Amino acid sequence: MPVIEFLPSKKTIHVAAGALLHDAARKAGVEIDVPCGGKGTCGKCVVKIKSGQVDTESFGMLPPEAATEGIVLACRTRVLDECVVVEVPDRKGYEGGKFSDEDETYLVRGELLPQKWQYDPLAVKWLLQVPGPKLGDGLSDLDRLTRAIQQWWGKIEIVYPLSVIRDTAEALRSEDGQVTITFVRDQERVHAIRIEKGDTTLRHFAIAVDVGTTTIAVQLINLGQANILCTRTDYNGQIPCGLDVISRINYAARPDRQQELRTRVLDTINKLIKQAAESHGVQPEEICNAVISGNTTMTHLLLGLKPEYIRLDPYTPTVHEVPYLNAADTGITINPDSWIYFSPSVGSYVGGDITAGVLCTDLSTPIDEMNLFIDIGTNGEIVLGNKDFLMACACSAGPAFEGSGIECGMRAALGAVEKVKVDPITGIASYSTIGDVRPKGICGSGIIDLLAELFITGWLDSAGKLNRVRECACIKTIGKRTYYIIVPETQSGIDKPIMISELDIENIIRAKAAIYSACTLMLNQAGMDFNDLAHIYIAGGFGRFLDLEKAKIIGLVPDVAKEKFHYIGNASLMGSYMVVVSQEYKEHQQELARRMTYMELSSDPAYMDHYTGALFLPHTDPSRFPSVLHMKQRL
Amino acid sequence: MPVIEFLPSKKTIHVAAGALLHDAARKAGVEIDVPCGGKGTCGKCVVKIKSGQVDTESFGMLPPEAATEGIVLACRTRVLDECVVVEVPDRKGYEGGKFSDEDETYLVRGELLPQKWQYDPLAVKWLLQVPGPKLGDGLSDLDRLTRAIQQWWGKIEIVYPLSVIRDTAEALRSEDGQVTITFVRDQERVHAIRIEKGDTTLRHFAIAVDVGTTTIAVQLINLGQANILCTRTDYNGQIPCGLDVISRINYAARPDRQQELRTRVLDTINKLIKQAAESHGVQPEEICNAVISGNTTMTHLLLGLKPEYIRLDPYTPTVHEVPYLNAADTGITINPDSWIYFSPSVGSYVGGDITAGVLCTDLSTPIDEMNLFIDIGTNGEIVLGNKDFLMACACSAGPAFEGSGIECGMRAALGAVEKVKVDPITGIASYSTIGDVRPKGICGSGIIDLLAELFITGWLDSAGKLNRVRECACIKTIGKRTYYIIVPETQSGIDKPIMISELDIENIIRAKAAIYSACTLMLNQAGMDFNDLAHIYIAGGFGRFLDLEKAKIIGLVPDVAKEKFHYIGNASLMGSYMVVVSQEYKEHQQELARRMTYMELSSDPAYMDHYTGALFLPHTDPSRFPSVLHMKQRL
Repeated sequence: MPVIEFLPSKKTIHVAAGALLHDAARKAGVEIDVPCGGKGTCGKCVVKIKSGQVDTESFGMLPPEAATEGIVLACRTRVLDECVVVEVPDRKGYEGGKFSDEDETYLVRGELLPQKWQYDPLAVKWLLQVPGPKLGDGLSDLDRLTRAIQQWWGKIEIVYPLSVIRDTAEALRSEDGQVTITFVRDQERVHAIRIEKGDTTLRHFAIAVDVGTTTIAVQLINLGQANILCTRTDYNGQIPCGLDVISRINYAARPDRQQELRTRVLDTINKLIKQAAESHGVQPEEICNAVISGNTTMTHLLLGLKPEYIRLDPYTPTVHEVPYLNAADTGITINPDSWIYFSPSVGSYVGGDITAGVLCTDLSTPIDEMNLFIDIGTNGEIVLGNKDFLMACACSAGPAFEGSGIECGMRAALGAVEKVKVDPITGIASYSTIGDVRPKGICGSGIIDLLAELFITGWLDSAGKLNRVRECACIKTIGKRTYYIIVPETQSGIDKPIMISELDIENIIRAKAAIYSACTLMLNQAGMDFNDLAHIYIAGGFGRFLDLEKAKIIGLVPDVAKEKFHYIGNASLMGSYMVVVSQEYKEHQQELARRMTYMELSSDPAYMDHYTGALFLPHTDPSRFPSVLHMKQRL
Repeated sequence: MPVIEFLPSKKTIHVAAGALLHDAARKAGVEIDVPCGGKGTCGKCVVKIKSGQVDTESFGMLPPEAATEGIVLACRTRVLDECVVVEVPDRKGYEGGKFSDEDETYLVRGELLPQKWQYDPLAVKWLLQVPGPKLGDGLSDLDRLTRAIQQWWGKIEIVYPLSVIRDTAEALRSEDGQVTITFVRDQERVHAIRIEKGDTTLRHFAIAVDVGTTTIAVQLINLGQANILCTRTDYNGQIPCGLDVISRINYAARPDRQQELRTRVLDTINKLIKQAAESHGVQPEEICNAVISGNTTMTHLLLGLKPEYIRLDPYTPTVHEVPYLNAADTGITINPDSWIYFSPSVGSYVGGDITAGVLCTDLSTPIDEMNLFIDIGTNGEIVLGNKDFLMACACSAGPAFEGSGIECGMRAALGAVEKVKVDPITGIASYSTIGDVRPKGICGSGIIDLLAELFITGWLDSAGKLNRVRECACIKTIGKRTYYIIVPETQSGIDKPIMISELDIENIIRAKAAIYSACTLMLNQAGMDFNDLAHIYIAGGFGRFLDLEKAKIIGLVPDVAKEKFHYIGNASLMGSYMVVVSQEYKEHQQELARRMTYMELSSDPAYMDHYTGALFLPHTDPSRFPSVLHMKQRL
């Protein structure tokens, strides 16, 4: 049985001959990221074979000489020899991200939030007085409890889980029969979740969860007062298995890996729940409801559903409206008998995060004015409509805006270049970094800043080519590629300059073109253009750091009045909160989901035309961006 | 940390100082039975301390010299020393019991069994054709499945557990959309349990379970044809923790022991399910429903409910009508999403085994004639009634009829004396044993045989005293006790004679008096006597080997015409079978349970009078047993 040693950790593991290096590393507890999901297409899982024989596949992104030096992709290399030593390069970690854990309710217009009189959470607490046991009345403890509930509620059927039955005898005998019942109601039944001795009505909690491809946020809510106690955010533990949903779906092709993805996302969610609960002295079993909103793939992976068919024509997921599930069944570590509600999805690429997000906008109200909702993330999701119709579509922006798939790209974390100013004369960039430390890379908002500056100052043309004519210390051609150096090696926090290639720029242009053209197509379908819109809502973590003027310059967002734009933060999380505290909002969300028409962009031939047109800065048709034209002319 | 060595197995274990010897033995995997539940009252857990210091409590049943020889009760002895060596005597095992695994339906009158047109099991299978996925129809797999079900069933709500959601995508894509759904219905909903590809309607199974204090029986049922495939029976794995329900309740006083009792009974049930399923090539997940009938204590222990309050005034159990529970929640290893139904109980000592058993009798039919149902086991349960009323009560017969609490008593297992004939002249017994091997002890039916024979031949008087006047080789007085030797040492299969003491006889008389007087009291309450009864149904494993004539002689059963008696076997199991195959029977059983009035004997002062009157052979009032009087006079 071959034995593999991983350096520098010196962790070793025995595996069967023919095992994938990546699997072996995982078993040994060594993390090797596979951003593309293990398809061999991203080249990020390079490792160096120090000794021993392996069977590797050759891939385009590795230069031919790599193999001779023992550099291989861990996801496509199998162990042959009895003894293999593998050097794993330092991980560019996902640690230290810049998360906003503040209450973001202020980002949402007040009248859109549930009002006091709409507070009506699914899980409710009741204080009851249950008479003591009596000889000869033939009533069990549960019979007496049922009667006490029915005295309040009428002859409704009551459903008890085993855990409540188990706790009943002691609870009824502890404080003279005073007990607090937690339950949920549906049309004909009361479902008990918990029984506690005495009066615990003031301790009543729920959570709202946003499960993003990249980021997961958990919000702890005090149901008694419908107020948010705290929010905890972290990267999705699935990131090492692929950066976007397609990579994750590819990674999940093997059942053990599908299971691994489930475990990873649950681990992240449960860790955040624990942190949030502990910070407020709340026990997990006191949390008796959860609302979870995620894109369709995230929901499938969380539930252990095979995501494969989301990716394959005709793109049919297993489920849109997940029925209520027990916390215990889902693996969410709150009270095991809690009901978990998943925000409904509309299509394979328009998920529960969008139906939750729309609740934070005027699209959820009966107005005549036309509104647009854009959630910019690894996927871009767009909803257009008013009281008469709702259309939704999704486009793949790729992870470029999140700093991935870009040579020196990184997340909006410590050391990321986030603001850039380019000198029109010298072409040299001045910049600031998150945390004001030495730069380690450039994040999404930094890249948009940079491109806008380069374009306005003329160092970048509309086709995304760097200026090779004017002399510039920052523009260099190495081999076949031309680069712009943002941070020279001397100022860099890593051992090399931070630069961006024309290939990177192409990636960003493709990403912005995907989103802009999806919006255009949708408006066209409705016989409108951007000027017909009353409001444009921008959601998603990336939007937080976005400079709208710069986004306009590169053509990511349309050239309309600034006042029409509204940044609404993590709308998926905020919408989840609304559904937690108000069943009216839950029903409203379900109705919105049913009303939304899902447009499959890939099946619309016009999309390609719109997309190609948008592959310029700001657009092939500059008249669409008059203010950018004006700005260019002024300089 | 003290270390204990158990002989002869030489198993050792480290325990904390002060640990109970019995707990230590359990941890070490050494079984020491505590028939009384660890209260120190039965004296069956004696062990010998070979070396080391222990702290033991002195109990009446151990002679004073025992302690000096190191003989102690494992349940009341704590370890003090660093090193203790304990000799554990050979277990009189509960192995090799004589169980009837045959189909006993023939014991129940044909018209009482569910008829073909009443077959309507809770769990049903359906073959469905589900259309394939289509681009742009906005339907998930689950949506299409729901529509296919609703096309048959109308707009009913369908509830899916996570396991079914997980299997749906593959099932729908496997055999051109042909799938088989297993589900249960309630008033407004269809609850899916399982989805399988293709047509599996012919493979559809359920189980019926009787959970007795002593014996557990599992029946595998083919739901397609409502026929019984097989029955598997074994002793309840809880026996080492106490022989009767009170001992078990005492044993369960500590939470870890309550959990242990749950594990033990589940282990027995699940082992029997496995045996039954394997013998017919059935997979556990193909078993999609179970009906479980047990006495109130057994049901509580199986569900992990604290049984304490069953024993304490006002004798109020946690639950009579257990709601439907998931197999996964209960720990029964069939399909985890199956619904498990528990036969309802009526009182702390009249359980689901009785409401199931009554289904096998005329008491469940709308007749005018008065009927009596007696389930003779460790507890005796009695139901009296007709179409107008049903009364139920329970008395503690103790384990004597099952061969326990009797010096040479044993179960109806290999080597048990089961038939006895006593020579009127010499007083010497001739006997036969189960399996025709050398006798090891005497079982319940053997004891009744023996007592009846001794009484009729005059070697025993009505007060239960052995004849000390006439010379008899078999009657011996040792110390203060007088014994009757059934099997001399030379013929015995153990190293000592098999005999019965006057104390044993007293036990038996008490047991029969408890049952007879409970019946009398109940008839009195209804203003009747035994002659008013049309039928007397005897249920329970013990009844199988019972010689009715002999039972009459000792006054266990009333002196009425033989034709009125009907032995109906394991009625609890048969009733469970009926409920499995017919929801009509389930509803009927629930109605019977609600109609039954529970009489608490211990609170009725007249019970003591009736009981005292029955403490003679056959009774203080011999006119109640004219045929016995006649028999005596003839000899």
